[in-house]
Amino acid sequence: MAAQDFAAKAERFIIGVMSGTSADGVDAALVAVRGSGEQLSWRLLRHETLQYSLKVRDLILGCAEGGRGDAAAICRLNVLLGELFARAAAHVAAKAGIALEGVDLIGSHGQTIQHLPAPVSITGINVRGSLQLGEPAVIAERTGITTVAQFRARDLAAGGQGSPLHSYVDFLIFRNRARGRLVLNLGGIASLTAIPASAPAERVIGFDTGPGNLVIDGLVSRLTSGREAFDHGGRYARRGTISQALLQSLLRHPYLQAPPPKSCGREEFGLPFLERILKENASVSPYDLIATATRFTADSIAVACRSFVLPHNVYEEAIVSGGGARNDYLMEQLRAAIPELSIKESDEYGLPAHAKEAVAIAILANETMLGMANNLPAATGASRPVVLGSITAGHRSR
Amino acid sequence: MAAQDFAAKAERFIIGVMSGTSADGVDAALVAVRGSGEQLSWRLLRHETLQYSLKVRDLILGCAEGGRGDAAAICRLNVLLGELFARAAAHVAAKAGIALEGVDLIGSHGQTIQHLPAPVSITGINVRGSLQLGEPAVIAERTGITTVAQFRARDLAAGGQGSPLHSYVDFLIFRNRARGRLVLNLGGIASLTAIPASAPAERVIGFDTGPGNLVIDGLVSRLTSGREAFDHGGRYARRGTISQALLQSLLRHPYLQAPPPKSCGREEFGLPFLERILKENASVSPYDLIATATRFTADSIAVACRSFVLPHNVYEEAIVSGGGARNDYLMEQLRAAIPELSIKESDEYGLPAHAKEAVAIAILANETMLGMANNLPAATGASRPVVLGSITAGHRSR
Repeated sequence: MAAQDFAAKAERFIIGVMSGTSADGVDAALVAVRGSGEQLSWRLLRHETLQYSLKVRDLILGCAEGGRGDAAAICRLNVLLGELFARAAAHVAAKAGIALEGVDLIGSHGQTIQHLPAPVSITGINVRGSLQLGEPAVIAERTGITTVAQFRARDLAAGGQGSPLHSYVDFLIFRNRARGRLVLNLGGIASLTAIPASAPAERVIGFDTGPGNLVIDGLVSRLTSGREAFDHGGRYARRGTISQALLQSLLRHPYLQAPPPKSCGREEFGLPFLERILKENASVSPYDLIATATRFTADSIAVACRSFVLPHNVYEEAIVSGGGARNDYLMEQLRAAIPELSIKESDEYGLPAHAKEAVAIAILANETMLGMANNLPAATGASRPVVLGSITAGHRSR
Repeated sequence: MAAQDFAAKAERFIIGVMSGTSADGVDAALVAVRGSGEQLSWRLLRHETLQYSLKVRDLILGCAEGGRGDAAAICRLNVLLGELFARAAAHVAAKAGIALEGVDLIGSHGQTIQHLPAPVSITGINVRGSLQLGEPAVIAERTGITTVAQFRARDLAAGGQGSPLHSYVDFLIFRNRARGRLVLNLGGIASLTAIPASAPAERVIGFDTGPGNLVIDGLVSRLTSGREAFDHGGRYARRGTISQALLQSLLRHPYLQAPPPKSCGREEFGLPFLERILKENASVSPYDLIATATRFTADSIAVACRSFVLPHNVYEEAIVSGGGARNDYLMEQLRAAIPELSIKESDEYGLPAHAKEAVAIAILANETMLGMANNLPAATGASRPVVLGSITAGHRSR
């Protein structure tokens, strides 16, 4: 669909496709969107999750942190993930009873396999990058739908962290005249958007607080020999006791005290971090390890709030989304760690916690297609607002 | 620049940025383009080449075939090359005396680090890919100019080889009512477009014939311990004698007899191929090796013409472009190998041989921006015409 036809439609059907740092599967959300920017309105028509097979997950993790990802592996994984994302998009449309011809746009985040926002000088040039796989040309060719992808690269090019991407969307859909709100997304990585009451976009804060489910998932996977990928409802953590010694040690991670803007990934909290915990705490029981990692996750968010957010403005409530919102034990620990906030799941605001990131990508894609800047420099640290993403034409491009 | 503004302009200034399989540097061409498709006309305003530093070339080759390219290295190289491509674009505009604000579009091919058109089944999905680096978001952010990139992925997604890309452009600019023409591009890889007199696009043939300068360059680099990157004017080859035994052995490479559509890269004719030649021919003098590799290059093109092109139509002339056109010895060998054709450099047709590929990328970008299909299925083997590439917005996107 050409940009001018897209802009002319009163309501647009957009599929957001998201696969997070957890690398457990693909979320696809079909969203009806009207308007743009602060006039944007949306309704979720359908959300579906397709799990990755163990083989695909292994290929992703091999490229992301296993050192098994050479150029050929990455070239092929990029195409393979494009095919899977196209299937996820077709699946959510079918489940919604809407033909692909009736979908106006796809936004695809892609699978992050590297997030390297810290500058490295190569031949005198400062290089900062983030690499997402999932070839948009494959998505556009298989579905016939114009596809927006590669959202993070432009924010990084403009000096930002390329993260959190969804702070802009959090601002659009959760800002409130009377109440200061924190929006917490508990994906593999946890990120926070802080929106003071009546604040304009320039006063919104956003950053990654540290691990979301990444460390918990990693422990569960390791301690069940890969049979389970996450702690269903927090039941393993609940059987354990928090090790204060380990907790205090984890809380000394330098990322927690670094001032925003900041972002992180598996580079900080992935396999090497996990292996150090396991090695240095061989005497701690598996359940205790999981309980402690869960409390660490909650506390790292609390540290972020106390150090960088709560002193500067009044916030009444925190709205939690992402897979971590389904971990009751984590939610309890979060409420215990930040008792001054009313902590709710995003479901109570009409947005299922698990669908949040896919909905956000659909909304970001809407803005890109309309030529609207859709990063939030106050959150990402970019030097200016930019239009994120690249556009790959569908079959009806003229 | 928004698509409708672009389309409304009578003449558009477009920069094409090309870095080929040789990985020796970046070519940038500033082209004034009018119209599109068979109504397209163009004039070259300026062409510039920026050599890669040895360090950058080493990083590219390390990712492409040295096995030194993990995800982090590829993530960073993608950004680094984006910066260099942006500089190349700014450089050619400055040399032409045109402000970046006056340039309407950039087309960037990117640096190929993998070309894997042969299908591999992964989890039951056939995967075929080609990986080009040089982040378009960096190019668009640094220059402010809307940037089209990632041309090959869509043709591959549509079942094509993703190559030769420029056959479509060859057809637009070299087709002739009275004369059948071959267009040969001697880059790292040699590719051929065969355009019968008065032929429509559907009757054009195109494919990669095998090595262009890749094997010759590799030998020169190895035999001068990296001090020289190519055989200037063919002077080293001219000092040698062709080894018929080695030549016949090289001509048995299975790629040469495989029927088109076909494409190749360093995967077939890169380092492992080079090392086998050196190992198995330790008694052959360096000059003789270079002379033989040059004749092999010419003969592999002749084999392609005799096997797949000349029997099917009448062709009077061959128009040669690419760095190989500057190798007088190679041109002599080519004339000797295919005496029935009148072989000329593209310079005689108003297109400097060295600027050809960058001009082609500028023209492809023009078509993408207008929503015009710009692959040539007869050449690439794609199932249908598709719009190649992704569009990343410049600073004036609305």
